[in-house]
Amino acid sequence: MTEIERKFLVPAIQPVIEEAFRQTRILQGYLNSDPDRTVRVRIKGSEAFLTVKGRSSKSGMSRFEWEKEISVPEAEDLLKICEPGAIEKVRYEVKAGDHIFEVDEFFGANEGLLLAEIELSSEEEKFEKPSWLGKEVTGNKMYYNSYLSKFPYKEWQNLHL
Amino acid sequence: MTEIERKFLVPAIQPVIEEAFRQTRILQGYLNSDPDRTVRVRIKGSEAFLTVKGRSSKSGMSRFEWEKEISVPEAEDLLKICEPGAIEKVRYEVKAGDHIFEVDEFFGANEGLLLAEIELSSEEEKFEKPSWLGKEVTGNKMYYNSYLSKFPYKEWQNLHL
Repeated sequence: MTEIERKFLVPAIQPVIEEAFRQTRILQGYLNSDPDRTVRVRIKGSEAFLTVKGRSSKSGMSRFEWEKEISVPEAEDLLKICEPGAIEKVRYEVKAGDHIFEVDEFFGANEGLLLAEIELSSEEEKFEKPSWLGKEVTGNKMYYNSYLSKFPYKEWQNLHL
Repeated sequence: MTEIERKFLVPAIQPVIEEAFRQTRILQGYLNSDPDRTVRVRIKGSEAFLTVKGRSSKSGMSRFEWEKEISVPEAEDLLKICEPGAIEKVRYEVKAGDHIFEVDEFFGANEGLLLAEIELSSEEEKFEKPSWLGKEVTGNKMYYNSYLSKFPYKEWQNLHL
């Protein structure tokens, strides 16, 4: 299956929290953080998943994705052998027109980062932009969670960009 | 789960073919060939599996292993994004006392290599050694399939060992 996603920065979490209809704690690690063949282990609330993602399309919006539900104890075992740099975040889900935005508030080494994602059925599909939505960063690999696990957000201030 | 295995070279395939009770074609690739967190996609006859293996123990005999059956079309999709260097082999299964040896005859870039493996329930467990069994290579990472996918057997003759 190919996943079509657009990704945005979010300047502040408070308006998101006020509009969210659900929030879930996520802990995830990588068996491979290579963007050409990412293998992710994720515990999301009381569920767990193994997810494989391929290289993204030229536009950065589309990416092959394969996902399988696994048990939480299996995920815990797999997290033990993941690359260093597990990611902890809280995901807020917010309705916007016919779509749902997933807004991730990161903790630990990525504290301070807020990212919103929307899943679309085609690269051309229109969607409503909430007032709290910031700059688009679709296709920017620095904001891939697999990248953040290796080069966390808190270290970016040392990059002298 | 931890897997305990011992691995041996096999000088010739003919006696193995004569004793085998089953033979199966295997095609496999790697979403990660790092021996600390190997992620393997395998099509084995009409079945398919995703397998994760951790770092091996000091003795080289034990290794964390997690496996999930997947569909053959899923495996075909995942093989497309695997690292270059898919492995093709025929596996012969041979009874020896209370155990079963799996003997792999490699093709393609690993043609000429024959490897036998036996799975044990403890590192101390005894087992019967068939007459066709060669030198033990347990724990030697050169004979890991994940290594062979990157540095295939046919290239070893250029190594001037």
